[in-house]
Amino acid sequence: MGENIGAVARAMANFGLGELRLVAPRDGWPNPKAADTAGKAIDILDNAQLFDTAAEAVADCQFVLATTARARAVHMPVMEVRGAMQETRQRVMQGQRTAILFGPERTGLENEDVALADAVLTIPVAPEYPSLNLGQAVVVVAHEWFSSAAPEALFSRNPSQAPATEMPEPATREALHGLFAQLEAGLDAANFWRVPEKKDGMWRNIRATLMRAGLTTQEVATWRGMLRALIG
Amino acid sequence: MGENIGAVARAMANFGLGELRLVAPRDGWPNPKAADTAGKAIDILDNAQLFDTAAEAVADCQFVLATTARARAVHMPVMEVRGAMQETRQRVMQGQRTAILFGPERTGLENEDVALADAVLTIPVAPEYPSLNLGQAVVVVAHEWFSSAAPEALFSRNPSQAPATEMPEPATREALHGLFAQLEAGLDAANFWRVPEKKDGMWRNIRATLMRAGLTTQEVATWRGMLRALIG
Repeated sequence: MGENIGAVARAMANFGLGELRLVAPRDGWPNPKAADTAGKAIDILDNAQLFDTAAEAVADCQFVLATTARARAVHMPVMEVRGAMQETRQRVMQGQRTAILFGPERTGLENEDVALADAVLTIPVAPEYPSLNLGQAVVVVAHEWFSSAAPEALFSRNPSQAPATEMPEPATREALHGLFAQLEAGLDAANFWRVPEKKDGMWRNIRATLMRAGLTTQEVATWRGMLRALIG
Repeated sequence: MGENIGAVARAMANFGLGELRLVAPRDGWPNPKAADTAGKAIDILDNAQLFDTAAEAVADCQFVLATTARARAVHMPVMEVRGAMQETRQRVMQGQRTAILFGPERTGLENEDVALADAVLTIPVAPEYPSLNLGQAVVVVAHEWFSSAAPEALFSRNPSQAPATEMPEPATREALHGLFAQLEAGLDAANFWRVPEKKDGMWRNIRATLMRAGLTTQEVATWRGMLRALIG
């Protein structure tokens, strides 16, 4: 179905995959319905290559995985998706041409198509509900492909996406101690501790909660202003 | 949309999740269209609980993650999906109640809903096509949840798997909201905000600092006692 092909293109684009090969699509090709579910991944549809058989589609590939939910009569290696994508990543980094075969939504891959592959790729699922649809299976595989990149590579194309760069300036110990002194003075004045022997332990625990918050310089200033307002 | 809710239920079932909570679904609930995309996961739809607000939906939860694609003004921890699900798995094994918040398909989560969470959950995606739809995002998170189980743990609920050292009991959202309400009332009475238009953003940032602290039930009680003493 065109809608399934569009959803596959979208998931590919989300996770950095670009080359789509179609084998004898049921409703011909191009299929305008594919654009309905492709989001902005139109270029992947426009550049999709068409083949009559799976054997032709993977003819130039050096490492092929077949996704299938069913146990097969053919005795061949089975790889879970995470390890399979790590293996594929290593091969791509060595310059190999690799492919992942997906079957049609309802029927899955034929045995003869599975036999084109080096290994079967499986996605671990709950035994009570094992059936993933095609779009879901592509999302999982594409996500694992993207995640198989080394962390440095993940953000290298656009360093501004890295969470680390958004880190605001953490407060200095000195600024934190100023906040703590203000809070302690307020609690002393309010006769909060009641049992003097317990103050040390309680106060350490209270400071620990604010230390865990990892306050920024700006946040320390906000807290000091709040305490001024509250203590009056 | 009902179709989105159904797709979410299906992905949950595929990866061993069962408890769905809906917040004010656009077209009401139950919605017969959800069954069209739920596959065999009808029981998850039948057992879905309905809430008016996200705050009520997570009131009994002790660890909450908010999925969001956009960078936020609020300074809070950001966890990539794989690490986030490993952390969630550990907490569940210790008996904590956990939740993952997803926003509506088009608009995503509101800032005030994100502020309910302990951390933001991100899914690494290609910067050129960063937009995942709701169903795709749930597939990725649910798959990572399922994959976060140790192989031995995958098919057994054996409680002896829990680590020996237990974390102290994290506060429920409800307990945190009691603390927040007390602090807000104190700041209102002290005329802390000065510029009323700035209150929303300031207050969200202040709550974020306490959310980041990951307060325990005992610590919330201590903080409430402190505020009582300070506000007088």
